[in-house]
Amino acid sequence: MKEYKGYLIDLDGTMYKGAERIEGASEFVDHLKKKDLPFMYLTNNSSKTVDQIAEKLNHIGVRAKPEQVYTSSLATAEYISSQKEKARVFAIGEEGLYDALRQESLELVQEGADFVVIGIDREINYEKLALACLEVRNGAAFISTNGDIAIPTERGLVPGNGALTSVISVSTGVEPVFVGKPEPLIMSRALKRLGYHKEDVLMVGDNYNTDIKAGMTAGMDTLMVETGLSTFDEIKDKEHQPTYKCRDLFHWIERLNFHEKK
Amino acid sequence: MKEYKGYLIDLDGTMYKGAERIEGASEFVDHLKKKDLPFMYLTNNSSKTVDQIAEKLNHIGVRAKPEQVYTSSLATAEYISSQKEKARVFAIGEEGLYDALRQESLELVQEGADFVVIGIDREINYEKLALACLEVRNGAAFISTNGDIAIPTERGLVPGNGALTSVISVSTGVEPVFVGKPEPLIMSRALKRLGYHKEDVLMVGDNYNTDIKAGMTAGMDTLMVETGLSTFDEIKDKEHQPTYKCRDLFHWIERLNFHEKK
Repeated sequence: MKEYKGYLIDLDGTMYKGAERIEGASEFVDHLKKKDLPFMYLTNNSSKTVDQIAEKLNHIGVRAKPEQVYTSSLATAEYISSQKEKARVFAIGEEGLYDALRQESLELVQEGADFVVIGIDREINYEKLALACLEVRNGAAFISTNGDIAIPTERGLVPGNGALTSVISVSTGVEPVFVGKPEPLIMSRALKRLGYHKEDVLMVGDNYNTDIKAGMTAGMDTLMVETGLSTFDEIKDKEHQPTYKCRDLFHWIERLNFHEKK
Repeated sequence: MKEYKGYLIDLDGTMYKGAERIEGASEFVDHLKKKDLPFMYLTNNSSKTVDQIAEKLNHIGVRAKPEQVYTSSLATAEYISSQKEKARVFAIGEEGLYDALRQESLELVQEGADFVVIGIDREINYEKLALACLEVRNGAAFISTNGDIAIPTERGLVPGNGALTSVISVSTGVEPVFVGKPEPLIMSRALKRLGYHKEDVLMVGDNYNTDIKAGMTAGMDTLMVETGLSTFDEIKDKEHQPTYKCRDLFHWIERLNFHEKK
């Protein structure tokens, strides 16, 4: 088995489910610390700041520093900045997105935007969507933090950012650039931040269509766990399989230990 | 030229544009009155009640009674009622839709719905969209008053109901039944209300993709005017052409008069 120099680790379904830690999560992270292996948490969640996410992880007993958290909002802000410094941005989203855009010194505007960006916004309203459509029709580039169609909650599956994004794309006929998993944009930026080449990093996640596909598209090896959305049975006929499959992260630690002893 | 026994007449782009009457509109309606030809105004607009629309028409000098107005909301409510009497409906929309649903004695509910219906709602919010998705995922039939992707305003094109509808269809993977033009549902109900067979009624409108297509799909003859959205140049290569094309309704009256004199 290949020895990886670093890890990219999904959060929802891999480290936690709602407010609960997933079994093996903290032990896995402790293992990486012990082995001095750098890692980064990688989430499509655009609503929270890296501080809020690190705090949540620590609160449920998974060690994390804010600089070890990489969100679709950070990747989106960095991507916009790389396209045009100090760009004018009309943004629909929550605190995590606004925070990331400000960190990149982007100018938040209501009209005359260079970019329209949308992330999940539970305070969405018609006026925000109308402004976004008007700006996109006026030539602003259209960016979406991620294409997730649904968010699991205690009530069931409610609309994700990909569903909200469709209001603008359907109305204007302009397809956005999606930044989050499974798109390569977030992956290349996360790898750059981690400081390793794609060949040396393992992508860990529970969602075949986002985490595993993102890793594959980025040319990385992937580890799929069965603690979240996708099941091995569901994906057994897929042409492209994850490099590794483990029921949970306990099994992955066992496998690493077994490999080490040999 | 065929003599039609009745007319279905589009509103926006045919009778008025925003708050302004389109030239030839009132003269055309007066002509129909004089000839004792029954007609019905047919609009995808689901937001207003038939009383409000009739009032607007009279206000700008186009004669109209509420019973001569047929909206996508009326057609939607009647369609639901035909599927299940006194059905439980979770509705997103404005006054015109709620009014139509109540007229059909449908029960408005927040959960346990038989039908989820969406019409344009300028007070849209995340909770309404979330409830709609939860109900559709729980098995409610999904209906949309119309698929218009954009609404023309003084500011430009803002999202139409087709764009809002996509939040629910993208998130749940369930495609709605669309009721409004160009779909046949609204046409068959309008014809029934007018009391004539499709062969005897002319569909008049400015929008090739809604009005004219609706007429064609319903097997009716169509008259396209150039006072609204579509131009004759734009549609010149379409396989299916309107039965008649007239720059405006003055030209149509002239044509009728000329035909009569022969």
